Amino acid sequence: MENYLLINALAADAPAGTLTGRTIDLGDLERYQVDVRVTHVGICHTDVGMIDNEWGFSQYPLVPGHEIVGVVEAIGEAVVGLEVGQRVGVGALCGSCMTCEWCLRGQQHVCPNGVATIFGGHHGGFASHVRVDDFRFAFALPDSLASEHAAPLMCAGATAFTPFVHYGVKPTDRVAIVGIGGLGHLAVQYAAAWGCEVTAISSTNAKRDEARALGAHHFVASGDEGAMATVRGKFDFILSTVGADLPWTDYVEALRPQGTLCIAGTSPSPFQVSLYHLLSEERRIVGGKTGALDDTAQMLTFTARHNITPMIEQFAMSDADAAVDRVRRGDVRYRAVLEA
Amino acid sequence: MENYLLINALAADAPAGTLTGRTIDLGDLERYQVDVRVTHVGICHTDVGMIDNEWGFSQYPLVPGHEIVGVVEAIGEAVVGLEVGQRVGVGALCGSCMTCEWCLRGQQHVCPNGVATIFGGHHGGFASHVRVDDFRFAFALPDSLASEHAAPLMCAGATAFTPFVHYGVKPTDRVAIVGIGGLGHLAVQYAAAWGCEVTAISSTNAKRDEARALGAHHFVASGDEGAMATVRGKFDFILSTVGADLPWTDYVEALRPQGTLCIAGTSPSPFQVSLYHLLSEERRIVGGKTGALDDTAQMLTFTARHNITPMIEQFAMSDADAAVDRVRRGDVRYRAVLEA
Repeated sequence: MENYLLINALAADAPAGTLTGRTIDLGDLERYQVDVRVTHVGICHTDVGMIDNEWGFSQYPLVPGHEIVGVVEAIGEAVVGLEVGQRVGVGALCGSCMTCEWCLRGQQHVCPNGVATIFGGHHGGFASHVRVDDFRFAFALPDSLASEHAAPLMCAGATAFTPFVHYGVKPTDRVAIVGIGGLGHLAVQYAAAWGCEVTAISSTNAKRDEARALGAHHFVASGDEGAMATVRGKFDFILSTVGADLPWTDYVEALRPQGTLCIAGTSPSPFQVSLYHLLSEERRIVGGKTGALDDTAQMLTFTARHNITPMIEQFAMSDADAAVDRVRRGDVRYRAVLEA
Repeated sequence: MENYLLINALAADAPAGTLTGRTIDLGDLERYQVDVRVTHVGICHTDVGMIDNEWGFSQYPLVPGHEIVGVVEAIGEAVVGLEVGQRVGVGALCGSCMTCEWCLRGQQHVCPNGVATIFGGHHGGFASHVRVDDFRFAFALPDSLASEHAAPLMCAGATAFTPFVHYGVKPTDRVAIVGIGGLGHLAVQYAAAWGCEVTAISSTNAKRDEARALGAHHFVASGDEGAMATVRGKFDFILSTVGADLPWTDYVEALRPQGTLCIAGTSPSPFQVSLYHLLSEERRIVGGKTGALDDTAQMLTFTARHNITPMIEQFAMSDADAAVDRVRRGDVRYRAVLEA
């Protein structure tokens, strides 16, 4: 059959293993599916966590990669609005049921039957092609976004952007971004473009100048003695992008009354805070997640309109192992992108 | 001077001490102040906590009582909209600066200069009179609310009601009320009147029938083996009214995607939860607090319109010590009210 697809993919076969090439049979293209020939794929910490089976649910062989840019190569017969040859981006989700209440109210990212690009045996973008389960999860990209920049937007960009929409951040708000890394360096740019007064919080002063260049008005080196005490009660919205155990009370205390701490990175230990800090001023602790379909579409438009650009390091697909290892060690500034 | 006031009050002189009568000189009535002759005063767990110096900031002599109903006896010269002889209710706050951004945006309950009725040396309603620092914190009461019922509304009612407003609970939501006590038995009534599908959660089955009579459609005895597992992913909004360490993960897991756990009672130990539970479905943990001026006004109107009635036990003011002790032991169903 003409719509049958064999892909060449890089896959891990065991936790923390190296990636090895193989051919994978994706079978026939179904009505709503799209095959995308991968040109660029970003590397997210979640890819590394899945390769390493950090959360215990990885399925091997595991083909990582969920920040994908490529070209539509085949479309199912029910696909609307996409054409063969068109450039698209694909993120952490590549399908949802389009039937449940969450899909019907435009919150497809919490669909209980969602198809995650690298979970549950689905093969990601470290490959010649990726198959998108539902064409609506392949996003047309604004022309002004270079493919190598668009790739990391598909997960890191969506995750940094969506909290501003879902938690009603206002341009008059004082916003802090915790962690200047893959997510954080984008979140600083989004917060500035959103019109907010922006404070970047990083453990040391190393990224001070860079954070300011990205749009931060203020910078706090949280590791400096007494630094967090200087920002007590200062922020309407704090977005934490780090995957570490933070002294959470410091961050909750840094909120103004009715302020929100949005946490977009998991921590090894449980989150812990005295309820007094929550109740006394109606503060809010909320979870951040990559967005729904409309959030991602808005993110792409907003990113292009404001000339927001991820800072990336590029690698050839054949150097994937080395690139993954650099991401694992956290020394990429700020996002690694593989080129096919 | 004619506006000078000596009150007879019951005060604690040391942590967990008995209350003894004394005369207190309140001095002259200022322009925005109102003196209210107390007819009824509810007893809140916060009164007991303050008598016992549970939070370490009690000032003695301490006159408890912040669920007050009485009659306006004197008004300052700048007071508008209140008349001598009028029946009013006074709650946990009796003044705010009316100048800061929080007051100006109608969020007086988080004013950093707010005057709490029983904090900071202000004398509460276990007395012949209470002085209200700002007349706007003395609320006209709907005629249909009996004074003994209106008293506990002023704190417990406002605290049970305000989260529905501040956190955008919708009549289509599935709501759980945790704890059927002073706050919880009102929250069940508010949730039902709000149009929600209501589940009452209590540690045992003892209050099952009562919770249903108050408007709960479902009841869960959380202490029963496996009971919380039956409500996993069930609720859009959970209001916890208990002041205890709960197995918080059970409650966060009981939320639907994008659901909110509102905590209106402090716990001895810090709140603790795995961030995975927050991030995976954009769940929210928020603090509940007694409301702003408009929230309390709306609460009174809503309570009257829906015939919502606190279940109370009445005591004479002279039996205050015995009543306080019963509240301390948690065996009042569900709110104690002293009558002058």
